[in-house]
Amino acid sequence: MPAMPPPVSDAPLDGSSDDAHAMGLAPVTILRQIAAACTYPELLEDPAVPEGARCRAQRILQEMEAGNIGGYNHEHRDLAVPRRVARFLQRRDGAPSDPRSIVLTNGTSSILPFMMSLLVDVTSPCPTGVLVPVPGPPVHAGAAALAGAVAVPYQLAEERGWAVDVDMVRQELRRAQARCHPKVLCVVNPGDPTGHVLSWQNMVDIIQLVAEENLLLLADEGQQDRAFDPDHPFVSFKRVLWEMGAPFSSTIQLVSFYSLSKSIAGESGFRVGFLELVNVEQGVVRPFQLAQSIPRPCVLGRILLDILMDPPDKGDPIQQALEEQRQGLCRHLAHQWQLLQEVLGQGSLCCQPGQGGARACPRLQLPPRALRQAQELGLEPDVFFCQQLLEATGVLLAPGSEFGQPEGTYHVVVSLLPPAPTLERVLLALTHFHATFIQAFS
Amino acid sequence: MPAMPPPVSDAPLDGSSDDAHAMGLAPVTILRQIAAACTYPELLEDPAVPEGARCRAQRILQEMEAGNIGGYNHEHRDLAVPRRVARFLQRRDGAPSDPRSIVLTNGTSSILPFMMSLLVDVTSPCPTGVLVPVPGPPVHAGAAALAGAVAVPYQLAEERGWAVDVDMVRQELRRAQARCHPKVLCVVNPGDPTGHVLSWQNMVDIIQLVAEENLLLLADEGQQDRAFDPDHPFVSFKRVLWEMGAPFSSTIQLVSFYSLSKSIAGESGFRVGFLELVNVEQGVVRPFQLAQSIPRPCVLGRILLDILMDPPDKGDPIQQALEEQRQGLCRHLAHQWQLLQEVLGQGSLCCQPGQGGARACPRLQLPPRALRQAQELGLEPDVFFCQQLLEATGVLLAPGSEFGQPEGTYHVVVSLLPPAPTLERVLLALTHFHATFIQAFS
Repeated sequence: MPAMPPPVSDAPLDGSSDDAHAMGLAPVTILRQIAAACTYPELLEDPAVPEGARCRAQRILQEMEAGNIGGYNHEHRDLAVPRRVARFLQRRDGAPSDPRSIVLTNGTSSILPFMMSLLVDVTSPCPTGVLVPVPGPPVHAGAAALAGAVAVPYQLAEERGWAVDVDMVRQELRRAQARCHPKVLCVVNPGDPTGHVLSWQNMVDIIQLVAEENLLLLADEGQQDRAFDPDHPFVSFKRVLWEMGAPFSSTIQLVSFYSLSKSIAGESGFRVGFLELVNVEQGVVRPFQLAQSIPRPCVLGRILLDILMDPPDKGDPIQQALEEQRQGLCRHLAHQWQLLQEVLGQGSLCCQPGQGGARACPRLQLPPRALRQAQELGLEPDVFFCQQLLEATGVLLAPGSEFGQPEGTYHVVVSLLPPAPTLERVLLALTHFHATFIQAFS
Repeated sequence: MPAMPPPVSDAPLDGSSDDAHAMGLAPVTILRQIAAACTYPELLEDPAVPEGARCRAQRILQEMEAGNIGGYNHEHRDLAVPRRVARFLQRRDGAPSDPRSIVLTNGTSSILPFMMSLLVDVTSPCPTGVLVPVPGPPVHAGAAALAGAVAVPYQLAEERGWAVDVDMVRQELRRAQARCHPKVLCVVNPGDPTGHVLSWQNMVDIIQLVAEENLLLLADEGQQDRAFDPDHPFVSFKRVLWEMGAPFSSTIQLVSFYSLSKSIAGESGFRVGFLELVNVEQGVVRPFQLAQSIPRPCVLGRILLDILMDPPDKGDPIQQALEEQRQGLCRHLAHQWQLLQEVLGQGSLCCQPGQGGARACPRLQLPPRALRQAQELGLEPDVFFCQQLLEATGVLLAPGSEFGQPEGTYHVVVSLLPPAPTLERVLLALTHFHATFIQAFS
């Protein structure tokens, strides 16, 4: 085991972020070239941007009704791009997709409260319940609260690689019925911050539960491009639904989310994604088609999303660059997960293997004395650990309690996105400090 | 009066849009150059972009914590840009502005429902009322409905240049108290689609009303850059409030909105604006500071907004270009309003003079027989007129009923943004057809 590196500069080293570009992922150059040429059309005639990018930018601008990225371009947003998203989904899932059921968004987090508010019956004295995974992104519970609904946490099965334990979901649902009317089940696949990819059978079980309990399935599939393990490929809920056939394929209400931030392009700064509404009742679909108030992506964000939706084509320099990025990102994530297991394996932290995310959620061993001290300080035990870790090593990790965690267990969240030397520094600091911490409180 | 032009191509000519770039406003080149260089940083070394733009782009990228527009760059969004917005507001108003009370938005329409939802008490059996101007942008009433509030329309005083008639607002408020609890007064200044700019005295009266009735003043000041008449300058509610002094300046709850779409840059496609919260209670301020779910602008949109907030500086090529754009836009709007009055003056439509908007709202004279025929067809009379106008001339105008209008009056909405020849075509078609229509139904 290498020697523990000394605390570095004054600024803490953020070891938990899933912000790809901030963590060092390089942008796909040709996408940026196209965006630059669309922004400043004089570049369409300038060798500063390669020809392939210029041609594509020209085609994109011609298609926009304003002829310019400075206009609203409603048709581009509501018709042209959704048509290509629907074609992408058809290729991905082998199932039909209707462009009118595709809504371009300003990112998952800002559309969630809008969507949930459509499911909430404000006139009912019994609030709407939204089942959210634990651990999971805090944004689902937050959106439920903003929409006037009640979040109902359900625990993922850590020992089974963070699978969804359908019996446990049902148990929570039954318990929650005393205080709310559970209408929505949120599932995050690939998982965040857990990094798991759901198995086909697990997804079938989830759909059956959703059918039996008459829930709407809200599938946050934003990290689909980050599934790197060929033995555990990402499969969309839409595809499983379709292959299960009637009555599931024609009745289960499914809303699936995609995000550019977590795509191979990793472009969080452009604030764009989409959702697909499948079998969703008209009362929920119509506001999406009508409301001016839906947070909309900027035109450049839509352009990048649109390009990502193109079919693979070896002859096309853009698709070639995207394929290289995809392979590079998957290799990188696979390598980082392996590094994580290797370094953690030398200490007493353990972590479920990941197959498709940019973050891992290793489990801490906290001695009873540490728990007591945290309690005296009025802190969650994992927050106490992370504060001590930061002070001792300069490494900033998010405590598991920010994402929720199975009762009586404590975790930290580690990002797999940084370059290998940075991740190694984070992991070594964590492993060494964890050992020191256990010793100090034993 | 020139001969009536024949109907043009198959595609209808949209004569009502306030989408600046779609209507022909040219982008500010140097803003686009900066955005392109930030997008594709290889341009920082390339003469394809002039040096002034490259230097600025370099400074912008250095300031961002991700060093790259592809990251979330939360500090840039929550600290750096709001600081400069606050400085801009201080210069504009001569009043202090706190960066923590500035929220960058994805545009006014998508932040409105979020804001209103914070003012709605879902546990109260009496719904929250939101007073909205008529005519006015439909988005305010729409946001109120989405937030579970009730829109309470109040009529602007057409004969007094669309001023806010404070007595009429009070009357509507009293009447509405039977069915809701009015908490918010929306005022749009400069007006849309009316093009009026409120006088100082009118604003003082509005603030006094707001104080007496304990309302929150929601000032949609997005069109402030479009105030072109030096005799009727735009003044912010913040400034009037400040000059009125205590107790108004320290107690009136004010939320003011700014939008890049309606700025001199006219960049609707970047989806960015901001709001300032003044004297607003903590229960409303805190969710803005905390919620992950607020629709956020893309990084490039923030960059453009940020540049527009810079102080005027004759030596700076960027500020010089912005000043030229400002003067050009104001000259253009002044000229177009004059053209409107000239052409309409030759027929029987009349229109209140405008001082600061991109749209006008001329009043139709509809004969009783036309009203009866519209009724038989189940149409609003102005919708019937607009349909007939479109069929006869190929010119598409929005009916006043889309924006609301004083009872028993009928209007059409005309955009002043298109180039003069296009506007002239629209106005001639409208004037001629209006005459023909009156004759046909007399």
